[in-house]
Amino acid sequence: MRQNLPTVEVFVQGIRSGDRVLLGKAITLVESTRPDHQAMAQDIIARLLAESPDSVNSLRIAVTGAPGVGKSTFIEALGIHLTNRGKRVAVLAIDPTSSISKGSILGDKTRMERLSTSEMAFIRPSPSGASLGGVARKTRETILLVEAAGYETVLIETVGVGQSEIAAHSMTDVFLLLLLPGAGDELQGIKRGIVEMADILAVNKADGDRVHLADQACSYYRNATHLLPQKPSGWAPRVLTCSAEQNQGIETVWDTILDFKQAADASGFFKANRKKQAGYWLQEALQSGLQNAFFNHKGVQDTLAALEPDVLAGRMSPFAAAEQVLAVFLK
Amino acid sequence: MRQNLPTVEVFVQGIRSGDRVLLGKAITLVESTRPDHQAMAQDIIARLLAESPDSVNSLRIAVTGAPGVGKSTFIEALGIHLTNRGKRVAVLAIDPTSSISKGSILGDKTRMERLSTSEMAFIRPSPSGASLGGVARKTRETILLVEAAGYETVLIETVGVGQSEIAAHSMTDVFLLLLLPGAGDELQGIKRGIVEMADILAVNKADGDRVHLADQACSYYRNATHLLPQKPSGWAPRVLTCSAEQNQGIETVWDTILDFKQAADASGFFKANRKKQAGYWLQEALQSGLQNAFFNHKGVQDTLAALEPDVLAGRMSPFAAAEQVLAVFLK
Repeated sequence: MRQNLPTVEVFVQGIRSGDRVLLGKAITLVESTRPDHQAMAQDIIARLLAESPDSVNSLRIAVTGAPGVGKSTFIEALGIHLTNRGKRVAVLAIDPTSSISKGSILGDKTRMERLSTSEMAFIRPSPSGASLGGVARKTRETILLVEAAGYETVLIETVGVGQSEIAAHSMTDVFLLLLLPGAGDELQGIKRGIVEMADILAVNKADGDRVHLADQACSYYRNATHLLPQKPSGWAPRVLTCSAEQNQGIETVWDTILDFKQAADASGFFKANRKKQAGYWLQEALQSGLQNAFFNHKGVQDTLAALEPDVLAGRMSPFAAAEQVLAVFLK
Repeated sequence: MRQNLPTVEVFVQGIRSGDRVLLGKAITLVESTRPDHQAMAQDIIARLLAESPDSVNSLRIAVTGAPGVGKSTFIEALGIHLTNRGKRVAVLAIDPTSSISKGSILGDKTRMERLSTSEMAFIRPSPSGASLGGVARKTRETILLVEAAGYETVLIETVGVGQSEIAAHSMTDVFLLLLLPGAGDELQGIKRGIVEMADILAVNKADGDRVHLADQACSYYRNATHLLPQKPSGWAPRVLTCSAEQNQGIETVWDTILDFKQAADASGFFKANRKKQAGYWLQEALQSGLQNAFFNHKGVQDTLAALEPDVLAGRMSPFAAAEQVLAVFLK
């Protein structure tokens, strides 16, 4: 990023008017580790939220599934379906394994070729970061920026193998799990906890010879989801088939997402869940900020280094040592 | 506790010479929530440890099992076995459900009647506390006091249903799980994680008609433990039968505990594990101290109360709010 950054005012007005270059630069500020960039990013987000708070018109959708299930093709098909209907769509990702140099989800420029050329769509690869917490936090902040820029449908792609899904679940309104055609005994590397989070399960690649296998998977997952405990939203998960490649069933998936939104609005779950998520992220931010401040404190590091050997050798109580270290920090 | 407490010096000398009244009073200081009591308790422990650090001659043994397995009877039988051989034994407990008013493990005066009359044994009920963390911490500090008073075999009783066992595991050298006679399909309400922690599994009540069932349980658990991943100690768990009520097999259990100690000494695991546990408790104490200082800070509470509604309503970013709260704390 160049030295001469636009002012916060320019960022705010630019993002509001849908300037994609300024939006991209603001996200780069969010992703930067430089304290001055971070401070500016916070200023921009604060200004944007003060003018138009968290919108109930926006819809944040987690899209996950095992590698090979066709997530990119699906997201492109769903994205085009929406942009064709005049909706602006942002596609973000949470992938802690990504880095700028390595190819990662959404990082590959050749993917989502059609969607990425649309002015109605904004695609951003996963931020890189040492920890899932850091990556997830940046994605969560980026959601606020893209929504302020008018992209009110936000798709969050994850890799479908673990913790990233929990992070995505903590910042989205609806959770969509993609599955492969096939018999029930194959859980497709998807952990039970991820299946439990899903509001909508879509068996993708239901085309050609695979239609029958897709129907089998559909029946299997319908039975399986009936056995799950009721979700806090009260919504009973729905299982569908589709073929992103053949562009079949995508409309039904979208209509089901809208059904979910309507039910969640009517029951009050939608707002309550947004509120709960905001509270969760506040706690997360407090905890990680507190940890950083403590363990990066010079006095804490020095005192800990001086006392730890005595504690480990049993010459000093861990509690007495902790008290001394804390006293240095809180002095 | 009376106003006129003995001096730290009197406590230290008294505990060293095995004065049970002063030992009991020192434990009461450890368990007290009053800051002056806490400070005095820390002084006493610091003085005791400075004079004789964490002893490799002491042996800390976790004893757990489902309710009804006969833990008290077993501990009494093992305790008497040891006191008869001239060993001094302390019996402590971790039971977060206990309180002074309710009967709790080791709280019932009619239990362990024979052991409790021995001058060689020191029995102390579980400390009470709002959280498992608090209860466990007090027990961990009490271990240091009873060892300084010469009780070098310390038995830690837990209730056998969950988190207390993890706490006990984090402060003991060897983990003993008591089981009931019976076929293999009954996991006796014992979670797999607890079975995995066990170094020695003893099927108790192996007497009368139950000898055959006890042998069955023994075979079952031998097979089950073979399937577990290797333990960090390198020790292969042993499965035994005993009858605490008939005083049968108790000597074999004790000999097996000594086998474990010898193997753990020889491999270096014993010392390494004590060191790891001290490090764990240092981290625990730092974390809980940091949390307390933060969330009890008046400025933190006020700022959080002022900003939280805006965060929950989506008018303010959780990250910006967290930054403001942290700034008040770290000012």
